[in-house]
Amino acid sequence: MTMRAAMARLVYDAQAQIISGLEAIDGGAFYKDPWTYASGGGGLTGVLDDGAVIERGGVNVSEVRGPLTDRMIQVLAIDPERLGLDSHTATFYAVGISGVIHPRNPMAPTVHFNWRYFELESASGVATWWFGGGADLTPYYLDESDCVLFHQHQKAACDAVDAGLYGVLKPAADDYFYLPFRKEHRGVGGTFYMKRSDLPADAWYTLAEGGLGSILPSYGEILKKQSMRAYTDAQREWQLYRRGRYVEFNLVSDVGTQFGLASGGRTESILISMPRHAMWSYNREIIPGSPEAELMAVVTQPRTWVSASA
Amino acid sequence: MTMRAAMARLVYDAQAQIISGLEAIDGGAFYKDPWTYASGGGGLTGVLDDGAVIERGGVNVSEVRGPLTDRMIQVLAIDPERLGLDSHTATFYAVGISGVIHPRNPMAPTVHFNWRYFELESASGVATWWFGGGADLTPYYLDESDCVLFHQHQKAACDAVDAGLYGVLKPAADDYFYLPFRKEHRGVGGTFYMKRSDLPADAWYTLAEGGLGSILPSYGEILKKQSMRAYTDAQREWQLYRRGRYVEFNLVSDVGTQFGLASGGRTESILISMPRHAMWSYNREIIPGSPEAELMAVVTQPRTWVSASA
Repeated sequence: MTMRAAMARLVYDAQAQIISGLEAIDGGAFYKDPWTYASGGGGLTGVLDDGAVIERGGVNVSEVRGPLTDRMIQVLAIDPERLGLDSHTATFYAVGISGVIHPRNPMAPTVHFNWRYFELESASGVATWWFGGGADLTPYYLDESDCVLFHQHQKAACDAVDAGLYGVLKPAADDYFYLPFRKEHRGVGGTFYMKRSDLPADAWYTLAEGGLGSILPSYGEILKKQSMRAYTDAQREWQLYRRGRYVEFNLVSDVGTQFGLASGGRTESILISMPRHAMWSYNREIIPGSPEAELMAVVTQPRTWVSASA
Repeated sequence: MTMRAAMARLVYDAQAQIISGLEAIDGGAFYKDPWTYASGGGGLTGVLDDGAVIERGGVNVSEVRGPLTDRMIQVLAIDPERLGLDSHTATFYAVGISGVIHPRNPMAPTVHFNWRYFELESASGVATWWFGGGADLTPYYLDESDCVLFHQHQKAACDAVDAGLYGVLKPAADDYFYLPFRKEHRGVGGTFYMKRSDLPADAWYTLAEGGLGSILPSYGEILKKQSMRAYTDAQREWQLYRRGRYVEFNLVSDVGTQFGLASGGRTESILISMPRHAMWSYNREIIPGSPEAELMAVVTQPRTWVSASA
């Protein structure tokens, strides 16, 4: 089986499994929307809007191919010449899964995960390939045990591939999920990697498989537990305000979103990462010592949630 | 008086006048927040959050200067060498006013306006200057008379400078306030220009002065009238959904926002353009023949609101 075929099977299977697990938690059903991509391939968008537990969530799979455009070259920061790609015949192939779950309850964090495989080729054959992916958690109120559980699962998926990997991918997530104009990280991080081909393709496949397998046992359990908690209108408003930051990160800083929108991707599938509701207010006051201040401390100064050594 | 001093006086005076007019409509008071810019200058942010008529609005003035960074060169799309700028000593100076008013009532449109003056210089003196600006209207429900009134005032400000100007700046606004990944314009447009120095500086000053003077007689009257109208929860939801598009445009496509965030501008002042509340939902259905469909028709195909000829 080619890596294209293996990854396509992995992401479609994982999508079905994760959606099914989330539906069991929410009680509602994801809407499944298959689509095709003009220059080749397509995808399956799975979305739950206005659910009982999940306020807005999407788990999308796509497998697309097409000509490598100038805008994509720019966004991907690649040098076609150095890669031996003939710019007139160069094409890309991308397969991946991406999910974002925004719960209704402000005590429950948002999760994002994404694993993908990419090939560039021109008339002479495959010029290069890489994997990317990771998962990160964005709480609105801090529960340290959630952060530890989530990072433990991410680390276990890394450890199955390479004992040093989590120690690299965790700080990479802290660096990537960062809003420079806010001097804030998006949440409590997780793992992140882009364009990795420095281990055999099978190793990166195993990491994607392990990461995907960890979503329900980690995030699913957190979602179930936190969604039982009571909350006030003020806590809900704080959640919506922090979701404004989520919007800012995804629209201003996220390379994946920009690549998708620039490559003529399917806008409604890409922007499934947007929350159902977000809010902005000017210079919002945060009371020192409050639970809101506790969250701000952790998004302005990343923490070690599990020891990087095995 | 230098153009720097003249523009600074114009924008501070206009800010006071426009805020005062909006306060008379809303009944509430704008919060005035003066700030300083690290490398020189500062500004005055005026903001009204959660008012009776204005759900979120800001009218900001800034006058800043500092070293011309690589990121700014990139965002401004300038070639320092061609402009005779010594990249080691090059500095920028920018003075401007920018306002966005998001009303609570979905029958009332959002307005944006912005006028600014820019200089680049290096050790040898001023290398180049330009003006930019314009104003545009974003309705949630279409009232053609509002669009006509707004464009008439924009055209009158243009006509006072040059009889052909509105015929250039109106289509420029249609082009600029456009979301390619949505294939939608932001609203019903207005006027827009960037980096213009092809008329004497005094002419561009006059245009800014006329444009600023037109805000209360055009938008102020529209806001007063539309805010008296009754609306349903469903209409309010449509407004919040369309405000999601406003967020998308400003964070993904707007050069001014990107320049501001990249140049280390004051984030809370720049993002005053964000609505208080925004909403996203997947593939929202629009019923043919409905008032919502009527709005979509006008944002997907720009119209002529006033004849470009005098």
